[in-house]
Amino acid sequence: MRVLYHQWLSPACRKGTDRACGKKLDFELRLESVWEPRLEFLALNPAGDVPVVVETDGRVLADSAAIVEYLEETVPDPPLLAGTPAERAEVRRLVGWFDNKFECEVTRKLVGEKVMSRLTRRGHPDSAAIRAGHANIRTHLEYISWLMERRNWLAGDRLTLADIAAAAHLSCVDYLGDVPWDAYEGRTWYARVKSRPSMRPILADAIPGLPPVQAYADLDF
Amino acid sequence: MRVLYHQWLSPACRKGTDRACGKKLDFELRLESVWEPRLEFLALNPAGDVPVVVETDGRVLADSAAIVEYLEETVPDPPLLAGTPAERAEVRRLVGWFDNKFECEVTRKLVGEKVMSRLTRRGHPDSAAIRAGHANIRTHLEYISWLMERRNWLAGDRLTLADIAAAAHLSCVDYLGDVPWDAYEGRTWYARVKSRPSMRPILADAIPGLPPVQAYADLDF
Repeated sequence: MRVLYHQWLSPACRKGTDRACGKKLDFELRLESVWEPRLEFLALNPAGDVPVVVETDGRVLADSAAIVEYLEETVPDPPLLAGTPAERAEVRRLVGWFDNKFECEVTRKLVGEKVMSRLTRRGHPDSAAIRAGHANIRTHLEYISWLMERRNWLAGDRLTLADIAAAAHLSCVDYLGDVPWDAYEGRTWYARVKSRPSMRPILADAIPGLPPVQAYADLDF
Repeated sequence: MRVLYHQWLSPACRKGTDRACGKKLDFELRLESVWEPRLEFLALNPAGDVPVVVETDGRVLADSAAIVEYLEETVPDPPLLAGTPAERAEVRRLVGWFDNKFECEVTRKLVGEKVMSRLTRRGHPDSAAIRAGHANIRTHLEYISWLMERRNWLAGDRLTLADIAAAAHLSCVDYLGDVPWDAYEGRTWYARVKSRPSMRPILADAIPGLPPVQAYADLDF
């Protein structure tokens, strides 16, 4: 069976897990505390981060973008990056939006400060960063709502890797109850993403000692 | 003609430019001061960053990874991301290494602090970050040397997007004279990358008031 080294509330890992389920692949999940470097893990991925996938033939894959592109090429059903080169560029632009812009402006400031600073015991959360995260997420929810007024899914007519990447980040923030869904149209889009069977293992996540807010796994939030 | 919106010493833009030259595409270069947001530019890319490419038919492409994948799909010669899915995953892993890990640990700390803080007039450079950047770059040069003992190019037998991404970052740091090449085998790899005709426009870069160090454009450095 494929092995996926992952970490709690890591959007990069959730992107992989969701795809795995959507593509009906089995993964053995192994939790890796990347902030306590292990030589055996560094031998798999000298970058020292997750996700890392070990294929059944022993081949090691690292880097979230490299992994999802590889799975797309080797297990094309269902396709999450299909269409013309221009359509694929639009999907990848939005994946980059969430993995870079949303990651810096929201995920790191909310999940990073509130959870990771605790897990890694690297001191107190930075309250200024948390305030900035709360302000920044509204711009992103406005952008999702703007897209949803024009498209069925984030990148166009079909569910794509862009929706998966966005949901990977938003679900981590939602675990803390920090997504102000009420004010935004994006809520109906997230309700559709959330009700997909492949989201179930993600919605069942629960960090010991830090349970999610009540609405986290609720499909009618 | 295609238009490329870019910025000085931006590895994300250099990656695009080098590919453009390698693929013999013509670009009209337009310098965009992303820290002074313009509505016209935000209409092209609401993320507000460079590179942005406007195709001859008016199509707009944003996000460095999306742009290089699009160019690879539409202008396949010379191929920079060829081979089996596993070989492509290795190329993308190394592109991620430089665009994420090297970017955070080196580029932002050296180029970001020394140059961008001056261009954007956002205060004094952070000397602790600069010291960290000088220390971190040695680990990366060791990794490049380790790869070079085993391979012809970073990702295998051929020049790929991994070499382009690495050179995009290293050339920006090298502009400041901050790459301690002397101690590392990676120097011979960089000499080969640097001597490619597509690097010429990059080596001709000169920011007004902040010229590069002497060895920057020197092929026998």
